[in-house]
Amino acid sequence: MHTPSAFALPEDITHHFIETPDGRKLHIAETGKGAPLIFVHGWPEFWKSWLPTVNLLNKNYRCLMPCLYGFGLSDKPERLSDHLDADFHAGDIKFIADQLCDEPASLIGHDVGGYVLQSIGKSASDAFNGLIFFNCPTASVGRKWVEDAHVNQIWYQSFHLTELAQKLVGHSKETTRLYIEYFLQHWCYDKSCFAPVLDEWVENFSRPNALIGGFSWYNSNNEKRLETLEGRIEISKEKIRLPAAILWGQHDPILKSEWGAFVAAHFENVTLDYARESGHFVHVEQPTLAAEFIETHIQKWRA
Amino acid sequence: MHTPSAFALPEDITHHFIETPDGRKLHIAETGKGAPLIFVHGWPEFWKSWLPTVNLLNKNYRCLMPCLYGFGLSDKPERLSDHLDADFHAGDIKFIADQLCDEPASLIGHDVGGYVLQSIGKSASDAFNGLIFFNCPTASVGRKWVEDAHVNQIWYQSFHLTELAQKLVGHSKETTRLYIEYFLQHWCYDKSCFAPVLDEWVENFSRPNALIGGFSWYNSNNEKRLETLEGRIEISKEKIRLPAAILWGQHDPILKSEWGAFVAAHFENVTLDYARESGHFVHVEQPTLAAEFIETHIQKWRA
Repeated sequence: MHTPSAFALPEDITHHFIETPDGRKLHIAETGKGAPLIFVHGWPEFWKSWLPTVNLLNKNYRCLMPCLYGFGLSDKPERLSDHLDADFHAGDIKFIADQLCDEPASLIGHDVGGYVLQSIGKSASDAFNGLIFFNCPTASVGRKWVEDAHVNQIWYQSFHLTELAQKLVGHSKETTRLYIEYFLQHWCYDKSCFAPVLDEWVENFSRPNALIGGFSWYNSNNEKRLETLEGRIEISKEKIRLPAAILWGQHDPILKSEWGAFVAAHFENVTLDYARESGHFVHVEQPTLAAEFIETHIQKWRA
Repeated sequence: MHTPSAFALPEDITHHFIETPDGRKLHIAETGKGAPLIFVHGWPEFWKSWLPTVNLLNKNYRCLMPCLYGFGLSDKPERLSDHLDADFHAGDIKFIADQLCDEPASLIGHDVGGYVLQSIGKSASDAFNGLIFFNCPTASVGRKWVEDAHVNQIWYQSFHLTELAQKLVGHSKETTRLYIEYFLQHWCYDKSCFAPVLDEWVENFSRPNALIGGFSWYNSNNEKRLETLEGRIEISKEKIRLPAAILWGQHDPILKSEWGAFVAAHFENVTLDYARESGHFVHVEQPTLAAEFIETHIQKWRA
């Protein structure tokens, strides 16, 4: 079990609240000085997920940890939205980089953030140095989402589209806890890695519209997800040109590490490695490995 | 909206509690006199689901309404079981017919009951007159379970395998209500047809182990379900010889009426009709049509 200090707040932590051109408030936590890194979280997460890794990097890097719109301390939609897809969030991340960075940043993404980074990679190759992924699902996964019993892992992606999910998970703080805790354990190899911060996670997802905000990702990504898992999606022949590096948690039950075989079809320049003692959350389960991986690749890209 | 009298208890209702050879207590409600009919329910149901239809048949027929093991007033497993599949329940229905009927019964099944009737049809053609289905999913449905966005309808079949489902749905009577009510509305064309009895349903599924009992069906049917939806199942060339008739609710969101096209491959002698104003629960949504359909086919088979 991690000591609570893995998630300790850095002494120099600061909080930005910036407003998008369409009037949404986005929260970005910042620590450290140096070349800028922007960390893009997944579900069920928010900026604090990155602390175990960022606490090992902020001596040498400026670490920016946004909360995606709908998450954490950022504004949230009041109803389930269908337009908060990867391209939407990519626009916000580009806006954040434009507002807060004087030089090209490197991007680190996980889960939802992994989709957001792929969207950015397709559209904005010059504004960033490179892309680092902790697990990286691509469109090539296709029908494998529903083969080899994997259909039994993806139920929440459908459940999150229903009004029932909002009512049942949001029934009380206790039901929110049951739900969030399930995923923070089930998806981990180290089942206790989120234990020190579970209360904070429950508080976060008990905030007004925090469940709807997260579920809106699934609702907004639904059409593309169906195209993918039904094998109908067209794989772009144009690969992402930004250099990319993937560290894939070998035991991830939801984003299977064997899907690493597909990434070469989507990136011109990609390296793939495996975190042998991680599940879904490499940045929390093996933060030392994650930080070293980030530093190694960033130094290479900046050389 | 149905008046409460659709679910009214018949004056002659009696309750049998019989013990299986392996010591499980099964509950069977009975009303009426005449040729025996055995009604086999689905999830989330128990014997009372049949009352709207049975109240129209018990003048002329002896109606037996068992609670499947794990449901209603029958015994229930204390932990999620993996051996309460269609063949298991078929054994119980054959035992009930053997214990309570002096002549071959006709079987009426829905949802889980539809699978149970197909199992019986494959193994015990002489002991029963015929099979009536309100919606009839067959192995031929195959990958259609996860095509055309249908993956977004089947999430509960996977969710029911998790310990989370027991904890979250069973958290309180209120969460059980939210969950059961969702399906009783979402799967209906007439969204209010279960409204008069919702409290009774909530009480029923709040009984000790009632959730585990129902979820055990999904856990026990899981392997066969995966074989089916992954297109791996072998379709038996030997068709069910018992005469069969299917009345399929045209608007069923979970068992799609277009899947009626597949039934000819599974039955030697089958008629298929559609209930134009029903979803999943024809026997509750259009009980007059359901009762007439049953009577028409039983009279033909007994002639």
